[in-house]
Amino acid sequence: MDEFGLIRSLTHGRQSRELLSKNGVVVGIGDDSAVTAPSPGQHTVMSCDTMVQDVHFKTITMNSADVGFKAMAAAVSDIAAMGAAPRHALVSISIPKRLPVTAVNELYEGLYACADAFGVAVIGGDTTSSPESLVISVTAVGEAEPGRALMRSAARPGDIVFVTGWPGCSAAGLDYLLGRAVASDPDETFAQPLETLVRAHRRPLPRVEAGRILLLSGRCHALNDVSDGVASEAWEIAEASACGIWLDEASLPVHPDMTAYAAETRRNPLDWLLFGGEDYELIGTMPRMYAEQVGGAVQATGLPFTVIGEVTDSFAGVRMRSSDGRTETLDKKGYNHFA
Amino acid sequence: MDEFGLIRSLTHGRQSRELLSKNGVVVGIGDDSAVTAPSPGQHTVMSCDTMVQDVHFKTITMNSADVGFKAMAAAVSDIAAMGAAPRHALVSISIPKRLPVTAVNELYEGLYACADAFGVAVIGGDTTSSPESLVISVTAVGEAEPGRALMRSAARPGDIVFVTGWPGCSAAGLDYLLGRAVASDPDETFAQPLETLVRAHRRPLPRVEAGRILLLSGRCHALNDVSDGVASEAWEIAEASACGIWLDEASLPVHPDMTAYAAETRRNPLDWLLFGGEDYELIGTMPRMYAEQVGGAVQATGLPFTVIGEVTDSFAGVRMRSSDGRTETLDKKGYNHFA
Repeated sequence: MDEFGLIRSLTHGRQSRELLSKNGVVVGIGDDSAVTAPSPGQHTVMSCDTMVQDVHFKTITMNSADVGFKAMAAAVSDIAAMGAAPRHALVSISIPKRLPVTAVNELYEGLYACADAFGVAVIGGDTTSSPESLVISVTAVGEAEPGRALMRSAARPGDIVFVTGWPGCSAAGLDYLLGRAVASDPDETFAQPLETLVRAHRRPLPRVEAGRILLLSGRCHALNDVSDGVASEAWEIAEASACGIWLDEASLPVHPDMTAYAAETRRNPLDWLLFGGEDYELIGTMPRMYAEQVGGAVQATGLPFTVIGEVTDSFAGVRMRSSDGRTETLDKKGYNHFA
Repeated sequence: MDEFGLIRSLTHGRQSRELLSKNGVVVGIGDDSAVTAPSPGQHTVMSCDTMVQDVHFKTITMNSADVGFKAMAAAVSDIAAMGAAPRHALVSISIPKRLPVTAVNELYEGLYACADAFGVAVIGGDTTSSPESLVISVTAVGEAEPGRALMRSAARPGDIVFVTGWPGCSAAGLDYLLGRAVASDPDETFAQPLETLVRAHRRPLPRVEAGRILLLSGRCHALNDVSDGVASEAWEIAEASACGIWLDEASLPVHPDMTAYAAETRRNPLDWLLFGGEDYELIGTMPRMYAEQVGGAVQATGLPFTVIGEVTDSFAGVRMRSSDGRTETLDKKGYNHFA
């Protein structure tokens, strides 16, 4: 069997008829294009996310299955960040000729593990060879109620700023994996606190359910996903909404396993939380009076929801009130591909 | 301005409000995802096509603007090959750090030239750096009437087989460009017969209008676009439809400029037509009794429409009747990425 035959066997008929049917798939993988039936009255939400070997991941940080999982997770997270429900994905993979067949197999395993977990039907894509680096690009397609998709630009002065989960763990996990510089092994297990951090880096979960709760609550204003660190995402909201954001250092949710690893390595865990990336948690704003009720609904799903600051019209940009009473302007910095 | 700033300036606000509005764009480039309003009662048609430097093109065969144009054309062609109307595109580009800013600019020029020509709204994408090769992946999204998208699997015995345009010219143009091995220059002009062939290779036009005529006629059965040569596409239709296809050598439309170049280089132009690729012409089947009327409607747009064979249930696969009366089985061969 050649590589095309392998990929065919790894994609055709892989997902259940129920999953495809539930997502309105009329023509799936195998023709020039896929055909789907939109849900009546819904708008379509689309995004695209690309991961490039040696730019977004290295063989010392990620197994092939993790790469597949995370590429799907990142694209689905862009749908979640609008409060939309993901339905479909198209996957383009450029595969280096020297990549072993087992690695290709694992890549698709991870990709479908994430798609299945979030009820996403993989309906098409393109597979090509690549001279050097593995490149995986996922287009995710979802649906949202007309006029209700949650934009970055909708923050209003007086809103509180919230974040879900434990941002920074992914960057801490990356720090560990880069530091030890050992080829990754799919069978390796980690003791705590490393397990939490490595898992956050390799298998981030897009916050689809929280996004839907936030949209359907009708209370959420701005929303973004944390792909480049809390400071960078707060900057995006502040700039798009033409307002300022205060973050409270003492409120930032620092996972105890991140604290433990930071202590061991003599680092400041806030550097990972504010300036690390790829957590795919949600950061957003809403009027203070609704935070307890809506936040409670998110927490009821098992996901932390933390108020970390507030929106203001008294300055532009992002500032932090430190625990010791000082204030400082936060950099936008996140990962810049061309720096 | 850094590269991200450049790309922002090359994409934000680039297309007219009229174009976006006509295509139901509610949220365009700039947030986590784009949001669009589906046309009432239509199905959504989606496909993805990827071009990789040194796999699909080289700097000696394509200028940056051509790469952008052709990447968009290839994705739109997959929509045309269903008889659907293209509406939106998402573009992922991985850019080598050493690529000059002028080349990035030209790439987007070509991309938008094609999108504008076919009324496609570019609503999102992802831009990353790449360690080595330029990779461009376009997801095209269109619409078709429910139950009427034209599939590869719909050919029936007794149908005629048709093709639009002049397939093979792109492969002949590639042959010339590879043979001379000179760095491509956007300002270079070519004398005939080369102009026809080089243009077919660098600026192929997806057959959107013909695809719509074919679908809306209600007479067309199978449809495919010629991305890997007429023989390879006929094989795809034959296999998907579980039937055989006869091609008539004497009927194959050989462009006079391809004949001239073939004579000069002592080659058989049918090799390009049957086994070359990237023409993005349409190949399909329909009952013989409708060919004149429907073909006439396609020809009225200025595009050749030629009956080149017929569908049979007397064998499986693809055979050709030669002009001298012999018959031969045609290979499936087209470009195989992993060969």
